[in-house]
Amino acid sequence: MKGLKVSVIGGGSSYTPELIDGFIKRVHELPIREIHLLDIEEGENKLEIVGELARRMIKKAGLSTKIISSLDRREAIRGSDFIMTQFRVGGLKARARDERIPLKYNVIGQETTGPGGFAKAMRTIPVIMDICRDIEELAPNSWVINFTNPAGLITEAILKHTKVKAIGLCNVPIGMVKMAADILGVDSSRIKVDFAGLNHLVWGRKVYLDGENVTDRIIDKLLDGASLTMKNIPDLKWDKDFLKSLNMIPCPYHRYYYMTDELLSEEIEAANSEKGTRAEQVQRLEKELFEVYKNPNLDEKPKQLEKRGGAYYSDAAVSLISAIYNDKKEMHIVNVRNNGTIKGLSDDAVVEVNCIIDRTGAYPINIGKLWSGIDGLTSVVKAYEELAIEAGLTGDYNKALQALVTHPLVPSVKIAKQLLDDIIRENIKYLPQFKS
Amino acid sequence: MKGLKVSVIGGGSSYTPELIDGFIKRVHELPIREIHLLDIEEGENKLEIVGELARRMIKKAGLSTKIISSLDRREAIRGSDFIMTQFRVGGLKARARDERIPLKYNVIGQETTGPGGFAKAMRTIPVIMDICRDIEELAPNSWVINFTNPAGLITEAILKHTKVKAIGLCNVPIGMVKMAADILGVDSSRIKVDFAGLNHLVWGRKVYLDGENVTDRIIDKLLDGASLTMKNIPDLKWDKDFLKSLNMIPCPYHRYYYMTDELLSEEIEAANSEKGTRAEQVQRLEKELFEVYKNPNLDEKPKQLEKRGGAYYSDAAVSLISAIYNDKKEMHIVNVRNNGTIKGLSDDAVVEVNCIIDRTGAYPINIGKLWSGIDGLTSVVKAYEELAIEAGLTGDYNKALQALVTHPLVPSVKIAKQLLDDIIRENIKYLPQFKS
Amino acid sequence: MKGLKVSVIGGGSSYTPELIDGFIKRVHELPIREIHLLDIEEGENKLEIVGELARRMIKKAGLSTKIISSLDRREAIRGSDFIMTQFRVGGLKARARDERIPLKYNVIGQETTGPGGFAKAMRTIPVIMDICRDIEELAPNSWVINFTNPAGLITEAILKHTKVKAIGLCNVPIGMVKMAADILGVDSSRIKVDFAGLNHLVWGRKVYLDGENVTDRIIDKLLDGASLTMKNIPDLKWDKDFLKSLNMIPCPYHRYYYMTDELLSEEIEAANSEKGTRAEQVQRLEKELFEVYKNPNLDEKPKQLEKRGGAYYSDAAVSLISAIYNDKKEMHIVNVRNNGTIKGLSDDAVVEVNCIIDRTGAYPINIGKLWSGIDGLTSVVKAYEELAIEAGLTGDYNKALQALVTHPLVPSVKIAKQLLDDIIRENIKYLPQFKS
Amino acid sequence: MKGLKVSVIGGGSSYTPELIDGFIKRVHELPIREIHLLDIEEGENKLEIVGELARRMIKKAGLSTKIISSLDRREAIRGSDFIMTQFRVGGLKARARDERIPLKYNVIGQETTGPGGFAKAMRTIPVIMDICRDIEELAPNSWVINFTNPAGLITEAILKHTKVKAIGLCNVPIGMVKMAADILGVDSSRIKVDFAGLNHLVWGRKVYLDGENVTDRIIDKLLDGASLTMKNIPDLKWDKDFLKSLNMIPCPYHRYYYMTDELLSEEIEAANSEKGTRAEQVQRLEKELFEVYKNPNLDEKPKQLEKRGGAYYSDAAVSLISAIYNDKKEMHIVNVRNNGTIKGLSDDAVVEVNCIIDRTGAYPINIGKLWSGIDGLTSVVKAYEELAIEAGLTGDYNKALQALVTHPLVPSVKIAKQLLDDIIRENIKYLPQFKS
Repeated sequence: MKGLKVSVIGGGSSYTPELIDGFIKRVHELPIREIHLLDIEEGENKLEIVGELARRMIKKAGLSTKIISSLDRREAIRGSDFIMTQFRVGGLKARARDERIPLKYNVIGQETTGPGGFAKAMRTIPVIMDICRDIEELAPNSWVINFTNPAGLITEAILKHTKVKAIGLCNVPIGMVKMAADILGVDSSRIKVDFAGLNHLVWGRKVYLDGENVTDRIIDKLLDGASLTMKNIPDLKWDKDFLKSLNMIPCPYHRYYYMTDELLSEEIEAANSEKGTRAEQVQRLEKELFEVYKNPNLDEKPKQLEKRGGAYYSDAAVSLISAIYNDKKEMHIVNVRNNGTIKGLSDDAVVEVNCIIDRTGAYPINIGKLWSGIDGLTSVVKAYEELAIEAGLTGDYNKALQALVTHPLVPSVKIAKQLLDDIIRENIKYLPQFKS
Repeated sequence: MKGLKVSVIGGGSSYTPELIDGFIKRVHELPIREIHLLDIEEGENKLEIVGELARRMIKKAGLSTKIISSLDRREAIRGSDFIMTQFRVGGLKARARDERIPLKYNVIGQETTGPGGFAKAMRTIPVIMDICRDIEELAPNSWVINFTNPAGLITEAILKHTKVKAIGLCNVPIGMVKMAADILGVDSSRIKVDFAGLNHLVWGRKVYLDGENVTDRIIDKLLDGASLTMKNIPDLKWDKDFLKSLNMIPCPYHRYYYMTDELLSEEIEAANSEKGTRAEQVQRLEKELFEVYKNPNLDEKPKQLEKRGGAYYSDAAVSLISAIYNDKKEMHIVNVRNNGTIKGLSDDAVVEVNCIIDRTGAYPINIGKLWSGIDGLTSVVKAYEELAIEAGLTGDYNKALQALVTHPLVPSVKIAKQLLDDIIRENIKYLPQFKS
Repeated sequence: MKGLKVSVIGGGSSYTPELIDGFIKRVHELPIREIHLLDIEEGENKLEIVGELARRMIKKAGLSTKIISSLDRREAIRGSDFIMTQFRVGGLKARARDERIPLKYNVIGQETTGPGGFAKAMRTIPVIMDICRDIEELAPNSWVINFTNPAGLITEAILKHTKVKAIGLCNVPIGMVKMAADILGVDSSRIKVDFAGLNHLVWGRKVYLDGENVTDRIIDKLLDGASLTMKNIPDLKWDKDFLKSLNMIPCPYHRYYYMTDELLSEEIEAANSEKGTRAEQVQRLEKELFEVYKNPNLDEKPKQLEKRGGAYYSDAAVSLISAIYNDKKEMHIVNVRNNGTIKGLSDDAVVEVNCIIDRTGAYPINIGKLWSGIDGLTSVVKAYEELAIEAGLTGDYNKALQALVTHPLVPSVKIAKQLLDDIIRENIKYLPQFKS
Repeated sequence: MKGLKVSVIGGGSSYTPELIDGFIKRVHELPIREIHLLDIEEGENKLEIVGELARRMIKKAGLSTKIISSLDRREAIRGSDFIMTQFRVGGLKARARDERIPLKYNVIGQETTGPGGFAKAMRTIPVIMDICRDIEELAPNSWVINFTNPAGLITEAILKHTKVKAIGLCNVPIGMVKMAADILGVDSSRIKVDFAGLNHLVWGRKVYLDGENVTDRIIDKLLDGASLTMKNIPDLKWDKDFLKSLNMIPCPYHRYYYMTDELLSEEIEAANSEKGTRAEQVQRLEKELFEVYKNPNLDEKPKQLEKRGGAYYSDAAVSLISAIYNDKKEMHIVNVRNNGTIKGLSDDAVVEVNCIIDRTGAYPINIGKLWSGIDGLTSVVKAYEELAIEAGLTGDYNKALQALVTHPLVPSVKIAKQLLDDIIRENIKYLPQFKS
């Protein structure tokens, strides 16, 4: 038995120790022979630090898994069983620009939502397409677990335009399950949530505890102050009438749509203060983290990593890989081809829904027509995503403009154009498709 | 041969002379025996003025059509062949409130679009339901031509919740055809436009002159300064890149979505000036008009009516009635049950599309999936309409809140609640369903 | 903890000992307080024999479950947690007629497929509707596990026309899984089959062993002589080219469609011989079985029951009940509302597909458009079922005629009429809806 | 003004004089410069006879239209405005085989329906694909009016696999309209029929006279003996209960499905008598016709042509061409891409429905879900067509077998195989795709 090869595209990320920790914990069900951490030249230093830490962690766990860190993408991909994509084109500096450009126009500046997410998508699509060409050639049977944001949009681009077997994954749904469990004080295995929507725009339509519908109890607790958010999103309280009438659990990112003005004020305030935007905070955090990682005595995932915001990231990823490898027929919430699951969206749209995972892939549980209260927002954001994918692939200014105009957080054509021009200008280094 | 009975619900409207003029012009194809102008007590004075003018017009034309003006709804409806609904619950005063309330929150204040249209819908639904019950009883075979705004939403409420045979009609599409003809300097009978969308949210996807696609020429002319708007919507110029990339003809009301900030500024400025909101301007205009109407020597449609904004209203209505009565199998752009015409929208959603009209009704020409650039906005506005209809029928505060939250012109839950509370409070007299 | 009440409508069936055996085996996960065996007057004798045997079996197992046998339907239903419907209106005598009438016209005579199944549906629908009215009143939260054939059609009638929570169940899919396991010599828990279709018209589209696609191996073995059939269907071999080109596993009942002439010959021969039709064989078998059941020393499921044809019936039913009760989130193949699972069929059509079962019901895994090779037959049989349900509810001769004309096994309108007239005449006692 | 070029692929057909007659009658609205009659070497003699007759007809009409008859396909196609395809691969001899092979197995033997139509499709698809490649190159803007049978299936093959602008046309719907007019004794311009279905499987769902629903009257007349059939289909009377319960007008070809056994008997009897199959009768008729055509004094469409069976063929074709050329926005019943018109069928399926014709093409009027009574048969025949197209393109034996198994007139897999083997063997000269 030769064991599995896992490659991590963007392996120099500060999240990697979390992932290594996850693999170590599941060693009894996932016989991993080799973990190949791949990064690009600009990230070589970080990659080395992380690689060394990973090796110390593996050693401490008494395992023989080989940790390779390299800049050779084709070698990383060749023969992989699982490929995890968690890279960030342009790094945190580009993210900081993504956050700041929209603020100039009084528009939400966020990494994955709105114009910030659009800019990130434009930078990412050319790179992911290149990677997928390599995968088609060098590891055509591998499973790609795509974490690269905007994860739903990027997964849709992969599934529409390559032959790669990809599943999009995000820690938001698993986070919502865990927090529902916390709220009720029970183990998360007893909780089932019926999710429906898109990545970073997913609603928990019903929450069950041991098969009993407890959605009302969760809503009451949320209104009472229980928290269901992410590190990177201000924890503003939900309006009572709204949440009661919605009668579902919004995801943390919904705040950008439902509390647009409040969040915009917070963002502007932070950006104008010493705190800076989220990317700027994270840059400082990362610096500290890598200092910690460098410590040659550190041989486990450090506590400080929790502040970074990727809670359950490792859990979601490693348990998904295990469900595939072990043919578990287990429910996971992932991003897959719609194929009629949500009525009204295109068959080839990617949606974030409850799926059964086995060795042959992810099978969505049928949903049907969404309730109008969430169908409208889902449809318009999906329309934006479809246009953004086309723009990202072709570098067509017109498609890009239509994408931004369609986005519900962009208030007018005039602002859409200003945003687009700024985004192209400030990212031109990463936008070969827009160059000609 | 006994001739047709046409009843006009809201017959005291300043538009009525336009309609009478239309019937007179088509007398050779529409043998009308009786026109019953119906209004409510508050409108009795106007009704009498309009009724007298109508009688003088008929007399001048040498016709024997009987003009009845009354407050007796059941008599007006009984045995009608065609029933035209053009009433405005609460009159122009309510409209002025619809326009001013949103402006308090920096939200577009417009009669049919956004929160203003929502308020109008809430006032109208209980009344139209009552009317339809009478029609079901007293004129079950009649055709209802619904002009009452928001015309698409109200038509959907009728088709979903009554057995009345209704077709929703608006002068926007015919206006767009006529203006395309003007731009090209040709007769409008040579123009065909492929429309798709919702009432007051309809795109001319392609314009043909004698079967040749001239969309590009129209777009160039529009960018060159040609005008395609309504009296009630500021004639802001379209952005060149946007219009070229859209490659369709937006309807005048699209400006509220595509030029939100510019129109909001204009509205606020007008509201704060002597000019006032559109309703306030129209109130003055109406006053003048009725003075003109009173003149016992006036026996034709007065010139001043053109300023009122209902261009082609009579043309659209009378030619539609004639197409039905004469089984013309002619193309008209009307509001009908979707039934799969636009893929992705519900079967029972009402859409504004090209239809073939004959004696048995309106048959939409198939469209399929809309291009993402217009699919998203169409879907989200339709979702709003579906929620608004439910709210209007039930008086359910939660549904009403969700409707406003879903509307793309309402920026957040907080503002949605403020708007909703203001709307209910200021309209409570007309909102029996919200009273309990 | 008070335990569950299970009622069995048609409790006097010879299958009941199988069911009791199943409950005994799962006692550790299903705490059953009471099993209420219900039958009608004509079945009283059998009911008593079965009831006594059931009591002896429970006693031998050392359990305290109460076995009640009665003719009081309302008492049986009242407060049940699970209600199993396994009755046969008119008994085996009616089934014999269902089998013989079509043979007169050289048409397949089968209990659930073709005109025989149609006759059975006509007799069953009025009775199941009555039962459901009682359930709505006396056990509104119960789960109905419908085994009554034609199981898909009857389940669709229930779901369309009552508020009862019903799941249709058949032993064919579980039988196909078990036989695939036998063919490969592995435990059936390692097999997953992707099913799609309708009850008694379900295809195993792909067979997986531990997540590996082994469809080809199963097909080769079937062509080599491995058997995948039911006791009641002659085990004719599949044509090699056909099975290879189908590349799916047909269910045993597909032989009626794919080998129509061969099976018809066999049926005619059997009917004209001493062997008789299947119902006639079963009548003899049942006689023997009840003689065995009467033996006061018998306190377990007798071997002879295996010949009866209901293999895995108990397994399918009891494991489904346990999956619901224990909120297992486990995959079962059941009959549920389509709701977009199979593209092209109506939302309210009932389909037989892989579902995830938990305490709140059965959730189908999305399928999408079927391959044309199976889509056509599925669509036409479903159209027949929809018409048959309408006919069964209303007693409308025209609908009934259209149903038979639509059925692919009925060769012409002329024969459809002859069949229909014979069926109504010979079943008139059980067809109150057709009487007037 | 240079006038139009029309080419006729299969120009040596005995139908051509009908077509020439039609063009002469519409000369005021269709300025045709050149009619290019194309045929293949085997048809050279007929082509010359028909060409000469056409020239005499044009001369008599005093027109200057140039009639070219040639064997040069590329010349015929080059620069055409309209291309009419009315060829028959293998001629009437192949048709005779198509009719006789099925009869060996007691299966309907018919030119376009069932296995006969399948054989014809297999011979036609390679040829039409070649023609379309030429059209893509030499007349990319031309309109192809496809009459080649099976017309719906062939049109679907063209639209799915080429870039050619094709509309499928059949004289059945226009024939049904004309006969409804005859039955009522009115001009056919006053009749509208709502058609839905597939080519040679189309139902007149409602018949209107001046907009009044007269379906019941037509049905009564049909039951009274009025005839609505084609020359090539025996005029068997409809069953009263069936037609009343169908409440639609079946097309003549429906007899093959609804009266299978009666028509089969007739066919077998004819085939075994001197009369022979329809192809054999037509062969004699054609011989006579060409003798008549040869007469150098004949300069108009001869009476005898009426027996040939193509009533309204010219009318349907020339009026369709005129509707396109003159941008008429007129209703025609043609074969077009479904695109959601009939719910449940694939978007790219070709359906026969009411369309509005203008210079830019054929636009179907939306239909929605068909009533189950016709939905089932439509779906299963369409599934057969989809498989047959794949088989015809690829020569895949498996696809071909699945196509025949799926066809409702083929009773079993065994017979399907025998049919397929016979069809391939006897047509191998025309089936290059099946050769390897």
